[in-house]
Amino acid sequence: MIILIQCADRVGLVAAISKVMADAAFNIISMREYVNVEANRFYLRVEVADNGFDTLHIEAALQKVLPPGSTVYINTAVKKNVAVLVTKEYHCLGDILLRNYFNTLGASVACVIGNHETLRSLTEKFDIPFHYVDHQDRSKESFEAALSGILSHYRFDYIILAKFMRILSPQFVATYPHRVINIHHSFLPAFIGASPYRQAYERGVKLIGATAHFVTDVLDEGPIITQQIIPVNHAHSVKDMITLGKEIEESVLAKALQLVLQDRVIVDGNKTVVFEN
Amino acid sequence: MIILIQCADRVGLVAAISKVMADAAFNIISMREYVNVEANRFYLRVEVADNGFDTLHIEAALQKVLPPGSTVYINTAVKKNVAVLVTKEYHCLGDILLRNYFNTLGASVACVIGNHETLRSLTEKFDIPFHYVDHQDRSKESFEAALSGILSHYRFDYIILAKFMRILSPQFVATYPHRVINIHHSFLPAFIGASPYRQAYERGVKLIGATAHFVTDVLDEGPIITQQIIPVNHAHSVKDMITLGKEIEESVLAKALQLVLQDRVIVDGNKTVVFEN
Amino acid sequence: MIILIQCADRVGLVAAISKVMADAAFNIISMREYVNVEANRFYLRVEVADNGFDTLHIEAALQKVLPPGSTVYINTAVKKNVAVLVTKEYHCLGDILLRNYFNTLGASVACVIGNHETLRSLTEKFDIPFHYVDHQDRSKESFEAALSGILSHYRFDYIILAKFMRILSPQFVATYPHRVINIHHSFLPAFIGASPYRQAYERGVKLIGATAHFVTDVLDEGPIITQQIIPVNHAHSVKDMITLGKEIEESVLAKALQLVLQDRVIVDGNKTVVFEN
Amino acid sequence: MIILIQCADRVGLVAAISKVMADAAFNIISMREYVNVEANRFYLRVEVADNGFDTLHIEAALQKVLPPGSTVYINTAVKKNVAVLVTKEYHCLGDILLRNYFNTLGASVACVIGNHETLRSLTEKFDIPFHYVDHQDRSKESFEAALSGILSHYRFDYIILAKFMRILSPQFVATYPHRVINIHHSFLPAFIGASPYRQAYERGVKLIGATAHFVTDVLDEGPIITQQIIPVNHAHSVKDMITLGKEIEESVLAKALQLVLQDRVIVDGNKTVVFEN
Repeated sequence: MIILIQCADRVGLVAAISKVMADAAFNIISMREYVNVEANRFYLRVEVADNGFDTLHIEAALQKVLPPGSTVYINTAVKKNVAVLVTKEYHCLGDILLRNYFNTLGASVACVIGNHETLRSLTEKFDIPFHYVDHQDRSKESFEAALSGILSHYRFDYIILAKFMRILSPQFVATYPHRVINIHHSFLPAFIGASPYRQAYERGVKLIGATAHFVTDVLDEGPIITQQIIPVNHAHSVKDMITLGKEIEESVLAKALQLVLQDRVIVDGNKTVVFEN
Repeated sequence: MIILIQCADRVGLVAAISKVMADAAFNIISMREYVNVEANRFYLRVEVADNGFDTLHIEAALQKVLPPGSTVYINTAVKKNVAVLVTKEYHCLGDILLRNYFNTLGASVACVIGNHETLRSLTEKFDIPFHYVDHQDRSKESFEAALSGILSHYRFDYIILAKFMRILSPQFVATYPHRVINIHHSFLPAFIGASPYRQAYERGVKLIGATAHFVTDVLDEGPIITQQIIPVNHAHSVKDMITLGKEIEESVLAKALQLVLQDRVIVDGNKTVVFEN
Repeated sequence: MIILIQCADRVGLVAAISKVMADAAFNIISMREYVNVEANRFYLRVEVADNGFDTLHIEAALQKVLPPGSTVYINTAVKKNVAVLVTKEYHCLGDILLRNYFNTLGASVACVIGNHETLRSLTEKFDIPFHYVDHQDRSKESFEAALSGILSHYRFDYIILAKFMRILSPQFVATYPHRVINIHHSFLPAFIGASPYRQAYERGVKLIGATAHFVTDVLDEGPIITQQIIPVNHAHSVKDMITLGKEIEESVLAKALQLVLQDRVIVDGNKTVVFEN
Repeated sequence: MIILIQCADRVGLVAAISKVMADAAFNIISMREYVNVEANRFYLRVEVADNGFDTLHIEAALQKVLPPGSTVYINTAVKKNVAVLVTKEYHCLGDILLRNYFNTLGASVACVIGNHETLRSLTEKFDIPFHYVDHQDRSKESFEAALSGILSHYRFDYIILAKFMRILSPQFVATYPHRVINIHHSFLPAFIGASPYRQAYERGVKLIGATAHFVTDVLDEGPIITQQIIPVNHAHSVKDMITLGKEIEESVLAKALQLVLQDRVIVDGNKTVVFEN
């Protein structure tokens, strides 16, 4: 059982929280805590051995010792579900489908939705439903309504944009707060927007990157979960950079999903607190 | 104030410890905890705002709630001291002297001892006493007695082997348990012993490394604090590898000193628990 | 067209070689050259725009200006073929099958052979023939004869050991010199042999690695193609290290295959010359 | 002897160039060549054993076989000289002074100029002249005239801005084209301008970087030589990032100086071709 707490900081919080756990006879397997002194914010992640205790009771007991306005999240679910949105590039989806098939994703893939048919055959090989939603010759509202319609038939905790090349409206994103995860093909905030590898090539950078982040209503501006880079040199064309970039896009997204699905990420405003192993 | 605890694990430890802190009105700035489930060992690092509380009292209060045989370390000292042993290579010593001069080392350099005169002029530029101890034509006992004699005139918490190319006897090392820090010029346990870069070259590896570790009585076998690697290729000669290696040796030793001097490292047997920021 | 040359070094080699190319009206797209001064060996990789010139003629013209005993390799083939040997772990095979399916592997997968049935269903999803060869209750000779029998029905340039957990005999390996590529789950030469992650855990290292290498007759001792590492800490159990390790095993093998399949690797004795982009 | 060539590409260039070398009985130690196909530009770096041949003669012979407008640079100088500009931060200057003192910089430090007195004592420890130029209460013209006045007394190949916190005018920079090297404390082009670590903290990035580049007339926009990154997390304050950043600033600048001083960098427009070892 994982418990995540986010609240204003004050003296004695850890003692009060751990007393609640001790009273419930919880065995603490690991505990990570961070205080942002500047902002007076307290963040905690505790993993305890599940002992059949009632989670509602625990949440109430915790809220009683925490400051007003605290956020307590308790996860006992064995497995989460995800919906995946794609366009044409296979590498991120392929990695997700493989992990899903061999039960190492930490979640179940509920469905894949593409604005092209390209990845249908790959998806269906793994017996995952694929839905095609055309974005051409229609308004964003109509396109997103179609997406929402399909999504409404599935249970999922997160929407993964696995190289989904359409920009979602703030209205759509707001429906799933902190639940839409994107992989952006640059080291944000460098090269925001379209063609980041072309931008990187023109600038002559010596490293390119990829960024996994939660999607908010501002383009490429949501809370960053994790980032990686890969060295490049003068001899790499834009095409070479795109090819190289795919390797870290896949790796960064896999890392981000692992962190999120293991309840290691707490979002606060436009930033994340990430308790890595 | 930093408190490090190491003991057998049992349910309720965190609650008991944090109650002691709360009773002392300590404000917990950060807390890191790790349980080695396989070994049933509990490790804790707590940083609290110093409030003038008596540390002996706190230690007693903690020992009362901890299992028998627990280790409690409390550090309130503003600054630690180090003695540095060198041979001929300047890069690690130079880095330490610079940081010491500008007060960013996190410790004060008490003295430098060399088994060559090579680094005297550098050391004395920074007004640090340099002692030369010849190792030639004398027994290891005699050499180490001379070292001990000089060291006995200084107060220090750690001995840093900053590319000191003599092997110290188990007897000498045992005098300073977990207090002698070495930088080894390979990615241990690969290439133990002499000429690791020559060994790496002959093997044709594509990465070379450096390892900072506590010295124990077995050569290159003490608890590892931190390690880094750097890529190499076919075009790097042994001499090139030595040159490249110096860059990470300096960097790894600097990182290890920072971790140790900030009380982020707990040694248990032949391994370390390192609570990084 | 790629030309690889390996020979004794002497003055004027580059001029002589490039004159042969100029006489053939080849347009040099890229040229990489390395001289091992210590060993007096010369290595060259040239990529030229294919202009329909007869490769046998070029090879003869090159041999005329090169020292006796030179090796000249000319590749005009559009695509190479590979056979893949596996046991139970899916991550390396999955990555290879995905790249093969989307034509980004730089080779075609001819067949997959497993000493367990575990990966049949994955392989057959992608319409690649899977052959099961049982290794139990039979001699290594018999097992390898069965492997060879299956392999004899396919055309392939390389055998990829994608987490194939049987040790092949020197006799078997000698049949395919410099054509068997293995991914070893450690940063060689550290932790040779079985259970490298257990060894790494016991030693308390702070980095773990993976190594792709050509297989020779000595266990884990063949020419290294590429290596990578990933940081670990005290909190990682052996199981965690195995999980983390899979990520870089897949990445290292993918990188090695790319280098080999693009004719960027020249093997000389127990070492490789790798001309990266 | 190092020869760098930059020119329009055409068939037969390598043959023509290597014939010139062969005619001069040069022994080619290493040769690196790159063709930017998109831009039809050819770049070459050759290292030959010096045989006393007249360099003017070689340059003329090369120009005869190269396209009009080619740039040929021949370096036979044993050692280059550098002038260093600083403000208050010691880490980059300290590293340069140490390497200079032990003859591993690949250049001689001619002088250090500071717009504060802070680093005088460090510089003078190493018997390098230090000049203080006040920037307060005077125009940029007057400040830069003072800089130029001091610089005019020294012979130097490059000006190194080793954490020099004043922006130089385009007029000043134009006096030393491709000869002013800056270390910028961010992963350009992210966080251009002032307080990049504050910007990085506010954005919640998970990696911070440093960039060494040639200075041109546009702020932080010159050709990039090399870049590095270092991971950060939510627990790093702006002050922590500044501290961490210094480590890579020093490392990136050292790497850039090594590349430039070994004549491994060719500048073309706003980009560099870097032939690493």
